[in-house]
Parts: sequence; structure tokens; C-alpha cells
Amino acid sequence: MKKLLFIPMLLLTLAVSGAAQHPSLLLTHEGVAEMRAARGTIPAFDAAMARTLAGADAALASEIVVPEPRDGGGGYSHERHKLNYYEMVDCGIAWQVTGDERYARRVIDMLKAYARIYPSLGFHPVKLSNTPGRLFWQTLNESVWLVHTSMAYDCVYDMLTPAEREDIETNLFRPMADFLMNGLEGNRGNNKVFNKMHNHATWATAAVGMIGMTMNDSTLVRKALYGSDETGKHGGFIQQMDELFSSDGYFTEGAYYLRYAIWPFMIFAQSIDRNMPELKIFEYRDGILFKAVSTLLQLAYDGRFMRFNDALVKGYDAQELVYAVNIAYNADRSNKMLLDVAARYQDWVLPTDAGFAVARDIERGEAQPLAFRSALYRDGRDGDCGGVAVIRSTDPALNSALTLKATSHGLSHGHYDKLTIAYYDNGNEVLCDYGAARWINIEAKYKGHYTPENRTFAMQSIAHNTLVVDEGSHFGGIYDESMKHHSEILYTDFSREGVQIVSAGEDNAYPGVKMRRTVAYVETPFLQYPLILDLLQATSDKNHNYDYPIWYNGQMVSLNFPYERALTTMTTLGKDNGYQHLWLTAEGSNSDSGTTCFTWITGDRFYSLNTATTPQSRMVMVETGASDPNYNLRVEKGYIIRERDLKNHTFFSSLETHGTYDLQVEQSDNLTSSCTGVKVLVDTPEYTVAVAEYEGGHKVTLCVANLSADKAAHHSVQTPDGVVEWDGPRDVKME
Amino acid sequence: MKKLLFIPMLLLTLAVSGAAQHPSLLLTHEGVAEMRAARGTIPAFDAAMARTLAGADAALASEIVVPEPRDGGGGYSHERHKLNYYEMVDCGIAWQVTGDERYARRVIDMLKAYARIYPSLGFHPVKLSNTPGRLFWQTLNESVWLVHTSMAYDCVYDMLTPAEREDIETNLFRPMADFLMNGLEGNRGNNKVFNKMHNHATWATAAVGMIGMTMNDSTLVRKALYGSDETGKHGGFIQQMDELFSSDGYFTEGAYYLRYAIWPFMIFAQSIDRNMPELKIFEYRDGILFKAVSTLLQLAYDGRFMRFNDALVKGYDAQELVYAVNIAYNADRSNKMLLDVAARYQDWVLPTDAGFAVARDIERGEAQPLAFRSALYRDGRDGDCGGVAVIRSTDPALNSALTLKATSHGLSHGHYDKLTIAYYDNGNEVLCDYGAARWINIEAKYKGHYTPENRTFAMQSIAHNTLVVDEGSHFGGIYDESMKHHSEILYTDFSREGVQIVSAGEDNAYPGVKMRRTVAYVETPFLQYPLILDLLQATSDKNHNYDYPIWYNGQMVSLNFPYERALTTMTTLGKDNGYQHLWLTAEGSNSDSGTTCFTWITGDRFYSLNTATTPQSRMVMVETGASDPNYNLRVEKGYIIRERDLKNHTFFSSLETHGTYDLQVEQSDNLTSSCTGVKVLVDTPEYTVAVAEYEGGHKVTLCVANLSADKAAHHSVQTPDGVVEWDGPRDVKME
Repeated sequence: MKKLLFIPMLLLTLAVSGAAQHPSLLLTHEGVAEMRAARGTIPAFDAAMARTLAGADAALASEIVVPEPRDGGGGYSHERHKLNYYEMVDCGIAWQVTGDERYARRVIDMLKAYARIYPSLGFHPVKLSNTPGRLFWQTLNESVWLVHTSMAYDCVYDMLTPAEREDIETNLFRPMADFLMNGLEGNRGNNKVFNKMHNHATWATAAVGMIGMTMNDSTLVRKALYGSDETGKHGGFIQQMDELFSSDGYFTEGAYYLRYAIWPFMIFAQSIDRNMPELKIFEYRDGILFKAVSTLLQLAYDGRFMRFNDALVKGYDAQELVYAVNIAYNADRSNKMLLDVAARYQDWVLPTDAGFAVARDIERGEAQPLAFRSALYRDGRDGDCGGVAVIRSTDPALNSALTLKATSHGLSHGHYDKLTIAYYDNGNEVLCDYGAARWINIEAKYKGHYTPENRTFAMQSIAHNTLVVDEGSHFGGIYDESMKHHSEILYTDFSREGVQIVSAGEDNAYPGVKMRRTVAYVETPFLQYPLILDLLQATSDKNHNYDYPIWYNGQMVSLNFPYERALTTMTTLGKDNGYQHLWLTAEGSNSDSGTTCFTWITGDRFYSLNTATTPQSRMVMVETGASDPNYNLRVEKGYIIRERDLKNHTFFSSLETHGTYDLQVEQSDNLTSSCTGVKVLVDTPEYTVAVAEYEGGHKVTLCVANLSADKAAHHSVQTPDGVVEWDGPRDVKME
Repeated sequence: MKKLLFIPMLLLTLAVSGAAQHPSLLLTHEGVAEMRAARGTIPAFDAAMARTLAGADAALASEIVVPEPRDGGGGYSHERHKLNYYEMVDCGIAWQVTGDERYARRVIDMLKAYARIYPSLGFHPVKLSNTPGRLFWQTLNESVWLVHTSMAYDCVYDMLTPAEREDIETNLFRPMADFLMNGLEGNRGNNKVFNKMHNHATWATAAVGMIGMTMNDSTLVRKALYGSDETGKHGGFIQQMDELFSSDGYFTEGAYYLRYAIWPFMIFAQSIDRNMPELKIFEYRDGILFKAVSTLLQLAYDGRFMRFNDALVKGYDAQELVYAVNIAYNADRSNKMLLDVAARYQDWVLPTDAGFAVARDIERGEAQPLAFRSALYRDGRDGDCGGVAVIRSTDPALNSALTLKATSHGLSHGHYDKLTIAYYDNGNEVLCDYGAARWINIEAKYKGHYTPENRTFAMQSIAHNTLVVDEGSHFGGIYDESMKHHSEILYTDFSREGVQIVSAGEDNAYPGVKMRRTVAYVETPFLQYPLILDLLQATSDKNHNYDYPIWYNGQMVSLNFPYERALTTMTTLGKDNGYQHLWLTAEGSNSDSGTTCFTWITGDRFYSLNTATTPQSRMVMVETGASDPNYNLRVEKGYIIRERDLKNHTFFSSLETHGTYDLQVEQSDNLTSSCTGVKVLVDTPEYTVAVAEYEGGHKVTLCVANLSADKAAHHSVQTPDGVVEWDGPRDVKME
């Protein structure tokens, strides 16, 4: 695999020009002139500016306070230093837009105050980070401080006397840039971070690069772009663009952390584009940053990022997305769908050139609806480490999405689950992923960090809609082991009318057990909503216990077999690997029928999962919350089908979305499943054929050629129901 | 108490004029002319009309089907007869608006089909009702059928030949009206219902009255208005208006059933107003129907009806409210707040004169924001049976509401809880009432009826935020006993700047125990949001156990005392009276402090309940779901403070709303309670003085003169913290 090296080459032969004029990071002369001219005509931008001016005026009305660094995250000095950079940005922009010198003066005076204390600062007294900062307890916050402060300095640059610049740059910015790059004596860890392929390095390089551009310091800019050694081979922003995203713009930790990573990428890219247009940074690697923004938007449902790996509920309204969407639109104004995201999900725009362009073009009516498409987002720098598949309803009005996660581990924020499905429909999460066990910023909940239950439950396989073998987690829940492997995408076809299929495999999660999952999203003429077929195959030489958990949102409606409900006492389902967190609320088995039906209601719609079972299958209902001394877990509900002591087992389910439930007019319809039976007809090493039957004599058959990837191959299989024929690795037949 | 009898007198001396022209129920000639002229200019009404025409066209495209009555609610013949009246209404209106005779013909043909079968129908074969219908399993549905069909007949009346009228009236409408009034041989129960003070009678009288007006039958109209004996003293619509609402427009079963009852009242009143304007029906009893609509709108939070007694989640978008709001606005076009309700909460308008007026005037921009006010809604026909108090934030932007329920039982839909509080804030239910245990229309959940858990849990006192004595329910959970009594409102003052107070008492819920509750809603200059003080006093000659349950919505954040969490096994809190449904998830006691603090998060805000306790107080955390074999209950969470073996106990709490929690920008503030202590300073038969203290040395003192209702009385009480003085029965002091 050859890396694109043309940019380093180009740059190293050119003098870095630095900022020819100020401002030139997030504002420009032309942009400011446009903003001034348009005042009062674009309500959304007027609001952004009013917010900025209010912040700036509040700053003017108060004393400059630059406290001695003392407190950790959330504490006084920490929050005060954060507030200071927000104030400086507000005042910098306010000066540019109003021409009122008091705003510029405020920024300069505050910078001078920082310049007075910074040289004498050692490491921050709170010792919780391997890379402590000086103003903050961790260097990461110091990088974020400098990114913001660079923008403010850029705005007021022309107002400073040469002596003032000398003071501030010598005492504050250069030492800080050096600190971010090299640390201080006693801890040089920042150098490693600065050159790492990691989002903390993105913040650090953005900070050093942006202050470098503002100060016209080409050395700092080169180091930011190409790493400390300026070779582009051992760090730097360009290498991060090469390595942190897959060629599809996917970020290995998942959507939630892609959201976080995109912020410094876009801010710094915008600055580079202004100051070094010859780099064509937004075109780099086939437009990788635009791809990353697009992938991020696609990995969301109803504006909320899909939850897998460590994830809280965040969405398009997160501040990172405002930056990303505004800057991406300003850099490629042909993408009018970004305006739709800004208009519908974000209630503010940046008070910058980019925000102005967004607000103005929304006002001009240029927004076009954000379109979702079924796609595979490949993981791994070269797209060869599995991926996340998202199947969308072809009719956008149906608004449903089915995901299959078959990626690599996802670094420190990854969870131990492969081949996990999630389903979103009708505005709701229907089959859920717990996401992260964390109450961010809530001191009482483990100081706002990931709680211990993140490791003991949320990361464990049983917390996910996947296969769990012998009540253990994938890769034994061992990080180093999981990091070695990734799942394989075996097949995707999103192009057929009415039938979309994805199939993935995982051979390493459990030694000696091969896992295959094929999910089909099928639009039938006889069911109310698209149907999902789920075929989860486990094969092994040895006997195992197989658990098939389904985490559902909403209220349990019915099960088609007798079950014993925990009435007056309740115990946990297990002791370890996440099972210790599950209350066993009911259990039973189905000796009347080979099809086990579970129906629940989410929102105003019903969902029925019909699964092929035997009288030996055990079904349990569970609820999270056991072994949770501090109520750190949310209460979530699951249904688990358990097969015992088998070499191979194939779970086959029909997931049917049905029903109209209108409480307001008290009308309802189609509240019970139409499925009359599901069965696996054939299950050999070569072929698996499974059928789901519905009222009216309808059938949907899922055909899998287990060993063939040949799209042209013709398959003909004898089943108890007759011969089934199809072409290619996977097919769905409807009758 | 003298009843207003002027209307019966007036009417009995006048000839009932009947319908001078058709249509004259929900449409008029003038209205239709206006609608026709305005087509294409008022989008909301165009949409209503498009919906109606689509329904009418679908009817035209299908066969007339009038099945033999056979099935119960939800079954085929039941739903088909319902669909038929909707179709007839659509076609009747379509004929009026388009002049296309096919629509009129369809109504006429269907009426003839009904006329052919109706005379031969005995009672419906499904025997589940004491008052079976003929087309439907219960007479109630037959009344609703006739209300709708009257509207359709009114629309097409002029298109029938005299012979057709003769056929339909003789074979269908007159026998049906007679059936609704008198039943059939073998079951004359309908006569009792027709003359009852009950909402089923409202439907029956509306049906008989509306078909009477359409057929120009003054006898039917008189009986509908004044009961079978036409005296107005033993039944009829006018007496219902006198007796079913309190003078504040409150309906004794509560907001949820007021919603249901208002529908036939408003439809029939509109018809009366058209045909007998001399009755001034909307002015009757000081505008009681307008008051009922207004009270209903006020007994809601964010468009959803407050949940007490039997209640599901319904709101302004319920179809009953579309009728009520449209008709009320058409009858009093000065009430522009009704337009706001229609515009913001209802996505359709009636395809009638009233709906047209609403759509047109919204389009004209006449809507005015619905304003909420603190008020007491008195229960009992004469307003002397307690009531529901609603305290609203004075700043509408704060959008919070605190309720105290101190009513009579509320007939068959009442729950066994007096002096219950609920709190709504920031768009969320914060202190909750479970409402009803029912999954309406969901066959699998007890056939959609109230589930057994409604009686065993939802109705029991422990399911509510009130005082529970000796683990029993109020009035022993005995209906006849509870129906004998009502709570007393002791004091209200919503007029003071920054301090709103309501106080109520209940002496009969537990023999020998006097309950008093005083809640104050206080806007302080030092807390982020208004503060709620809750003083719940129990006094008795004998020792009792007192439970103080708080049902909260959201996630438990912290308790300020050590507690033992159920980790691997869990049991129920009790065995009866609702306690059997509670899982005991944790328990503990607080020997470190006399102030016990519980903090939780709901939405993006925090709530802290600080309560005065002793080391003997036991605190438990509970969750619903035990003893619930069919998962009929929702999972809800409660916190209970338990005081054992005491004659008297006063629970005093500060409920503080605090915190800014913005996950999207990861900024948060004020996440811990500011309360430094709460204590009851004085608690004698004469006086109770309790103080809550907050950071910064602030104090809020609640002063209660237990025995004095004298607003002018001056009180001076020695407390451990010095002398406290105030005037009147209740006061709040702030320092």
C-alpha cells in the first residue's frame, strides 16, 4: 500500500507563506465585509452575531480574571480558563464586525495577563493525567484553549503594537506551542501525543498550526502538518488524515467518537485552506474530510448518532457538528444537504464566514433534504477491516434503518461485540445498543467518567444484539486480543428493488466457533411494513451454549408460550461477563410450536420477533440493574433465546413491524403478528435455506450459499418444501 | 340551593320549531357557501376537506356493506358499523360542499339498507353489557352511531323524496331513538341510562335530540333536553349541564374523563344553538360548557392532560378536543386562545362551519397564546367537594406546574389518593402519577380493558405521592367508603408575588388520622428555579407507620446516606395494597444528618428533595413490576421515606429544581443541591413552622397556623431560631 506523499513534497519545496493578512483563520476581510453589509437581513446569522456580541459585552462588563491553575475538570480555575477563551473569541469577532476597539483591547489585555503568568507555570497541580497541562489538568484542554485563542488573536492581530506582539508571542504562544509539542522537563509525554495517530494529536497539531499561521511562523506550521520531524512520516495532521479515517471516512471508534474527532480536523483544515490554498486540503485523499462529515451524518437516525461502542445520546445538534457542517458547506457549497442539517437540527450557526454562508444560503432557500442511502462504511485505514452496514428504507417516509456492526475493535472506546444488529424505526430505537455507561459531567456518577459498569456491562457481548457463546464475551473481553482481529463483510447488495441484504462473518471472537450473520430487509406486497429476516449461524466442532439476546425498547406485549414470571423474588441471570447485571424477570419454553413469537410496542407501532425454536430452547426476559450498587445503569429490557449444548445452531428470525396504534382517536389495527411460522429448511455446510410464512399463504425464503462468493453461481437445493433455486451467494424469494 | 329553571319554562311555553332548513347541525347554508368560496385559500381547511372527500370517494368506490350485528368491540361487524357512520358523514359533507349528487345518494342508499334490517333486530348477540344495543354490543355505541348519522342525514335531507324520508324515519330513526330512550321488551335499562346523570346519557340525549331536530320532531327534542318525563327534573341534557360539572367546569372523574365527556356535550350544544338559539345554550349556567373546555385545557401540561385517577397519556390532539375547541371557538370567537390550541397541538380541523372558522382565523393570524394561570378547580356540583389546585410558574417561560389533588372520589374512575402532589417542569413529568394500568385496544393486555393491576396497584394509595398509613390505602380501598367523603381545601393564595400556597386536609381517609398538606411554590432571588416546599402533617391519638412516597421520572443520581442496594436478589416491599407490586431495590437510613437528600435527573435538569428525617427514618427505593404475571405494569421508580410507630409525624421537604445540563455542548452547572438543611422548628396543635436553608445563608420559612382560618389574624411563635411572626393562616418568609 503506497501512501500519497505529494503534499509533503510540495510543501517542503515551498516557503510556508503564513498569514498574509489578518484575520485569516475562521474569518476573512471579505467575509467580515459581507457580514457587516448583511446585518439585519439574515435572522439566523443576526442571532449568531447577537449571541457573540452578548458574550463580548458580558466580558467587557466584567473584570479580567486569570486564576492560578488549581482545579480539575468542572472546578473553578478550569471553567474560568475555558470561559476566558470563549470570551476572547467573542470579543475578537465583535471587534471585527463592529469596529469597536474596546473589544479588541479586551482580548489584548487578557492575552497580556496570560503572558504574565504563563512562563512561571509548571505542571498543573492536579495529577490525574499522564500528560498534565499547565493551565489545565491535561494537555488536551490546553490544546483546545490555544485553538480558540489563536482565532481570537488572529482577529485582533492588527491592533497590537509590535511590542505587544513580542510580549504575547514570546511569553505565551511560543512557550505554549513548544509545550504542546515537547512538554516540559520532567514530562516529555506531549511529544509522543503530538505525533500520535489519535484525536488528541489532532487538537495539538491544530493548536500549533493555527497559532503558527497567525504568528507567521512557518516552522510551527510545518511541524503541525508533518510532525515534529517535519517528514510527514512520523506524525502530523496530514498523516492523521491518512490514517485516522478509512477510505469511506469511517473512524474506527464509531460514530460517536467520529463526532468528537471531526471538530479539530475541520477547524484546522479551514485555517489551512485559508492560508495555504495550494495544499487543496479539502481535496486531499479524495476529499476525505468531506467523506468523514458525510459518513458521520449517515451514521445517525433522526439526527442522533447510532449507538455502538462507547456512545451517549448525541446528534447533529452537538457543537462539533455545527463546526463540521458549517465549515464543510463553506468549503463545498455544492452540498446543499448540509444546509438542511443546519436548518433542521442545529439552532445556531458559527459567527464566522462559514456560519454566514450557511445562514445566508438557508435564507435563500437553497437547502436540499438530507438523503439517506443504504451503504457499507468500511473500517480500517484501507477499508479492509470489516465495516458497519446501514440499510435504509427505500421510501424515506418509512424512516427505518437496520445496522450490522462487523468492524475492528475500535481502540479504547470499542465494545466486545461483532455482528451486532440494531434497528431504528418510526423515530424510535427499536432494537437497541446500550451504548456507554456514563453520566458525563455528573460528579455523583463516578465523577462523570465512564462508570465501572461500562467495562462490566456495556462493553460485554451480552449487552448487545449478537451471539454470545458459553456466557462469555467476544475475545474473552480481552482488549489486546480483540484489537488483533476484525470481522469480515461477506456480502452486500443494496441495489435490488425491495430486497437489501448484508452478510458478515466472525471467526475469532470465540476460538473454534464460526459466526455468520445474514440480515435481509425486505419490502413485501403483503406486510404493512418492510420485513427483517435475521439468520445467525454458529458452527463448531465442540458443544457450546448459544445465547441470542434481543434488547428492545418499549413495553413487552406478549409471548406465545407459558412463562414463569418473577413475582415476589428476583435473581440475576449469571455471575460474570455482564450477566451479573441482568435481573431474570421471566423464563419459559415453547413446547407447543416450533415458532416462538415475542411482541412488543415501541411508540405507536408493534414489533414481533418470530424465531425458530425447539422444546429445548429456553427463553428468558431480563432487565438491567443488578450488581449495580450506585444506580449507574439505565433500566433496559432484553429477551434472550438460549440453546444449550449444541455443536451448531442457526437462529432464524422474522422481525415484523406492524400495527397502527392511535391512542388519540382510539383506533388501532394489525396489532398481532402475521407470521404463521418460521423454520430452517436446510442447514448444511454448503447451504442454509430458511423460510418465514405469513397469513394469506405468503412465504419469504432466505437462501444462503455458505461457501460460495460467486455472484454468477447458480444454486439448486432440495428442501422439505421442494427445490429452491437461486443465483449468487445470497437471495430472498417471495411468494 | 335553587336550580335555574328558566330554560324549561321558556321552552315548554314555546313550540319547538325544529329544523327550519337543512343542514342545520354542524353545517349551515351560510357556512357551506363560505367554505365553497374559500376553497384553495386556507390550507388547513383545504386539508380537512381533502380528507373528507378522500373518505367519501373511498366510500363511493366500495360496496355498501351493512352486516348482521355479530361481533363485540374491535370485531368485524362492530368496526364496519362504525366505519359506515364515518363514511356517511364524509359523504354528507362532500355532497354539501361539491354538489355532486353521488355523495348524497350514497348516504341515502346506506340509510335505506339500515332501514331494511333495523326493525327486525333484537338485542345484539354479544352479551357483555347491562344495556346491550342492537347494532352494537352496547347501547353507548348505538348512541354514537346516531349522533354521527344525524349529521349525515341532516346534510342530505333535502335530497330525499318524502317516501324515502318516511321509510328511513319510520324504520330506522324513530325506532332507534325509541330504543335509546326506552330499550326493548326484555331490557328497559336504556330508559334509566337515558335519564341518568352520566356521560352515557349525554351521548343518548345528543343522539335523540339531534335526530329529533333533523326530523323536526319536537317531542324527541324535548325529551332529549328535559328527560323522558319532559320536566327537566329527572333527566335530560339540561340537567346534565347542571349536575355533571362543578361550577368551575370540573368533571368529578378528572381531566382524562372530562376530555371524554366534553365531546357529546359540545356536539349537541352546537346543534341546539343552531336550531333553538332562543335557549342561549352556551350562556347557560354562566357559560358552563365554555368553562368546562377552559378547565380541561388548564388541566394539562405541555398539551397532555394531567394524570390523576384513571388516565392514559392523552392531550389536546385527542379527537374529542378537536370537536370541543372548534365548536367552542365558533360559539365564542372572542376566545382567540382556542386558535392557539388548534394551531399548535391539533393537526386537523373539523370539516364543518366550526372547523372552517378556526382554520380561517388562524390563517388570519388571530391566534393568541394559550395562557395558563394558577387556580383551584372545585369539585362537586356546587363546588363544595374539595378540588384540584394547579400552581403555575408566573413566568410562562419557566413552564412548570404543581398540582394538589383534594377532591371527591371521582366515581368509578377515581383512585384512592387524597392530598397527592404532582410536579411538571421543563416539559417533563417530574413527580408522577401512575395514572391507569391499561393498554387500550391491545388485545394481549387483558383485551384492552383496565388490567387487574389497575385495581391492585394504580388505584392504591402507595402508587401516589401522598401519605400512606400502616401500608393501607385511603378509605381501606373501599369504593363506597371513599365515595362518601371528599377532602377540604383549607387555604389558597395564588395572588402574591413570588409565593403561591395551597393547603388541604383529609380527615376520613384513615379513621383517627388527620392529614394536612401545605405546598408552597416560591420564587427566590437566590435559587436558579422556583422552589417547592411540601409540608405533610399526620396526627393521631394512636401510633402508626407513615410512608411518604415520591414517584419520580428519570434517573436516580444520588442519596446522601449509605444504602444497601439489592445486588443479586430482590424481593417485594410488601404483600398487599399495592406494596406487592414494588421491588425493593435499595434501603438505608441517615444517621449523619437530619436532612436527607435525594437527587435525580429528568431531561436536562436536576431535582433534589431534601427532607427532615431522624436516624430512625428508613428510606427505600422501589420499582414497579413485582406480582405482575403478564407485564401489564410500566416500570416506574419511587423513593419512600418511612416513619415507624409514631402518633404524629410531619414530613417537611424542600424540592429544588436546579442545574443546567447540556450534553450537546458538554456544559453543565449547578448539579448539586444548594439546600444545606431542612427542619421542622415548631410543630404544635396550633402552629407548625418549618425552615429550609440554602447556601449563602438563605432561609425560606413555611409558617402554618393549624387552627386558624382568619386572614387577618396575627401570629407570633417562639422557635429555636427565634420568634417568627406572620399574618393569616399560612405564610412563607424569605431571608
